[in-house]
Amino acid sequence: DARLADARQVHPAHERVSVPGSRPDLQVPRLRVHLTNGEAFDRYTTAGPGSDPAVGLPPLRAAWVRERGDDAAHDAGRPVTQMHHARAGRITPEMEFVALREDCEPELVRAEVAAGRAVIPLNVRHPEAEPMVVGRRFLVKVNANIGTSAVTSGVEEEVEKLTWAVTWGADTVMDLSTGRRIRETREAVLRNSPVPIGTVPVYEALEKVGGDAAKLSWEVFRDTVVEQAEQGVDYVTVHAGVLRAHVPLAAHRVTGIVSRGGSIMAGWSMAHARENFAYEHFDELCELLAAYDVTISLGDGLRPGSVADANDAAQLAELRTLAELTTRAWEHDVQVMVEGPGHVPLDLVEENVRLQQEWCHGAPFYTLGPLATDVAPGYDHITSAIGAATIGMHGTAMLCYVTPKEHLGLPDRDDVKTGVVTYKLAAHAADVAKGHPGARAWDDALSRARYDFRWHDQFALSIDPPTAQAMHDETLPAEAAKTA
Amino acid sequence: DARLADARQVHPAHERVSVPGSRPDLQVPRLRVHLTNGEAFDRYTTAGPGSDPAVGLPPLRAAWVRERGDDAAHDAGRPVTQMHHARAGRITPEMEFVALREDCEPELVRAEVAAGRAVIPLNVRHPEAEPMVVGRRFLVKVNANIGTSAVTSGVEEEVEKLTWAVTWGADTVMDLSTGRRIRETREAVLRNSPVPIGTVPVYEALEKVGGDAAKLSWEVFRDTVVEQAEQGVDYVTVHAGVLRAHVPLAAHRVTGIVSRGGSIMAGWSMAHARENFAYEHFDELCELLAAYDVTISLGDGLRPGSVADANDAAQLAELRTLAELTTRAWEHDVQVMVEGPGHVPLDLVEENVRLQQEWCHGAPFYTLGPLATDVAPGYDHITSAIGAATIGMHGTAMLCYVTPKEHLGLPDRDDVKTGVVTYKLAAHAADVAKGHPGARAWDDALSRARYDFRWHDQFALSIDPPTAQAMHDETLPAEAAKTA
Repeated sequence: DARLADARQVHPAHERVSVPGSRPDLQVPRLRVHLTNGEAFDRYTTAGPGSDPAVGLPPLRAAWVRERGDDAAHDAGRPVTQMHHARAGRITPEMEFVALREDCEPELVRAEVAAGRAVIPLNVRHPEAEPMVVGRRFLVKVNANIGTSAVTSGVEEEVEKLTWAVTWGADTVMDLSTGRRIRETREAVLRNSPVPIGTVPVYEALEKVGGDAAKLSWEVFRDTVVEQAEQGVDYVTVHAGVLRAHVPLAAHRVTGIVSRGGSIMAGWSMAHARENFAYEHFDELCELLAAYDVTISLGDGLRPGSVADANDAAQLAELRTLAELTTRAWEHDVQVMVEGPGHVPLDLVEENVRLQQEWCHGAPFYTLGPLATDVAPGYDHITSAIGAATIGMHGTAMLCYVTPKEHLGLPDRDDVKTGVVTYKLAAHAADVAKGHPGARAWDDALSRARYDFRWHDQFALSIDPPTAQAMHDETLPAEAAKTA
Repeated sequence: DARLADARQVHPAHERVSVPGSRPDLQVPRLRVHLTNGEAFDRYTTAGPGSDPAVGLPPLRAAWVRERGDDAAHDAGRPVTQMHHARAGRITPEMEFVALREDCEPELVRAEVAAGRAVIPLNVRHPEAEPMVVGRRFLVKVNANIGTSAVTSGVEEEVEKLTWAVTWGADTVMDLSTGRRIRETREAVLRNSPVPIGTVPVYEALEKVGGDAAKLSWEVFRDTVVEQAEQGVDYVTVHAGVLRAHVPLAAHRVTGIVSRGGSIMAGWSMAHARENFAYEHFDELCELLAAYDVTISLGDGLRPGSVADANDAAQLAELRTLAELTTRAWEHDVQVMVEGPGHVPLDLVEENVRLQQEWCHGAPFYTLGPLATDVAPGYDHITSAIGAATIGMHGTAMLCYVTPKEHLGLPDRDDVKTGVVTYKLAAHAADVAKGHPGARAWDDALSRARYDFRWHDQFALSIDPPTAQAMHDETLPAEAAKTA
């Protein structure tokens, strides 16, 4: 029986099933939606098998890592990355898992990872995660940010937010925690996460030096990255492209430097009149990441913070540097994503993908939104979903969500859900627009249910069944209204 | 003193001011946002001067209509349309009003209206409305649908929804009421509306014949249109393009015919084995509309109801007919808009505008969304805002809003606001993307306030100040958090 327990079932007609791979311990999860007409519709699911926070998830990939000798290679400081294996012509269980999940040939996954056009962000020390792929040939993915802060929330709350985010479809989660329990929170998140976890290590490094960017150093930063890699972080954002020469280009912007990581690195650089330490030590950083298979996400510290600043000299100068760093990381077999904006008017969105793909040789683009206008705080999940669907259609591989609280405050549980659902629909709209094989089948299944007045099927197939049903029942609660 | 009373002020820093025109009774409203740094930012406003529902709004345009002899011409059944005057080379006060509102030359307005590329939807019997223009050279507009139904709501509630919709920026409102008090509701809406009011007359005609489409006739339909025109309706949707030959083209769709007007006309046509009566009597209809200056909005009765059906043979066949009807209406000096879909994947959105603009000689395109995916009932304000911003960027002149309740139930007051605000931000994103003169100034003003941590200014400049402030105060309620 393929049925698995799932405490986070969002609709009674949903069932977690698994597609068997080439070995008994390779079981790829699917969400099966049972319809009232006897048919069923299967979808991609990120929800995981469900975990007891006190115990954590089982180490799904531990045997795979061990069998191919990655444990020993890791201990010896040698590359254990999926790119390393892909370039050697090996199809790992992770690649096969991803191929079954995406309904494509394993060889396509291997070839895209080998070429750097896709990444499978999986630290060998995070064996709990279900493999997933980020690349333009695959489904557009969504990242959700969570994290404690000095102002609010605790460890349990973050694990709950994580579980909530993956229940609604987050493909990866970034833990942007700050404050006292940062390490403990990350540990709990990692042990309970069925999806890859990303971080921005410079945030923790800054706390170690009392919050004064000028007191940072390569050593403090490196040690922080190592500690986080040891815990199992799957990808790290590093703002190594904020060079000294770029900073003056942002001086006359409407909104200067808005990326937190970008300001930290620019602040350090200016205080010491020295080049960005992450840039200077980039090869050392890559060697370190390669031994864990931590994917590097090249942060866009000079991303525009307003539509006025989009695609300007500062942004594009940094992108040129990120392109150079992409090639350097690949020399170490390190998997690379390149981060993108931010705030971009719709007419300039396509250019962002085009330049990034050309300059960075097809490395996956990972963008925040972008927001298509600055005038709607409180609705920035929407202003940015407009930009996100568009940039996804043009080839962005992963979209970092934006919640309604963007620019205003810290997202709570409801905001996390709204952000994830909004971005999942934007990502799906992009998949449909790209003509991604099979993507439109979901739309068609729901539209057929709608046309046949099969209301229960319409709810069950919805991206958010309880919300759809509640809105329906508000006007027409009677059972007859759902069947006629 | 330019200050006017405004009971519906949404932020204390907002003031309704007026820009004087060439005559004392031509005063164009603007929303002035007073900033804490001593500057002010002026925006377009649709809110109107505020009305007492028992009295209605003052007849702003009555003298203008009278002075140019439109009263007499109307009584004689002669054309009184803005297109008629524009073609004769006359710049009416309405055109001047619109030019001041849009910050452009009155001659541009006249030329665009004369060419049919823009409409000023204003029935001579709706003198209360403030003139506005719909056309691709102008700001992208937003329509909000309201309306009583058999299930819910009364006259007062609809007037309140109208006022609510224009408070948040609806540029026109369609009254889609059905049920017993349809005529009374429309009268109350018209007398209190500072924006043009649209209707779908076949809905009322159908009620007159007991809800049986087969019992409709040209005479019943015509009489209904005349009655509504007499009341002051500014534009009417007529599904004259649903020809008998087109109906079979929709037979193998995933979602058949989803437009209510489209199904009614197709149903009548099939029942009688005759051509669509609105098509057959189109010239008579136009003569009638020309004598009131009722703009015709050519309904797309065969619009796709799912992304699977987008841009198909049925839709495009109807569009060809709408192009033919556009030219015929122009022969009668009738102002024309052409309606568009619906549900369209993002990659096919641009083609919709391109074909409509080419085939219909630049007549303003007025689209419903379109929804970029079918999978998100409950979030269709967002799935459609994605399509709306994109289609607006490519040249659609007016966007018909979609609320979160689309496909699920009837919108309440909150849904109306969410729908309007979402569409206003989509329309603004389109204006910015088009490089519309001055459009980005709003973004820049808000971004500067954000970068300077002028929180109160950020709220005041927001598209929805109370929501932005409430979200901010949820995490950081202290006054210090707004100024530091």
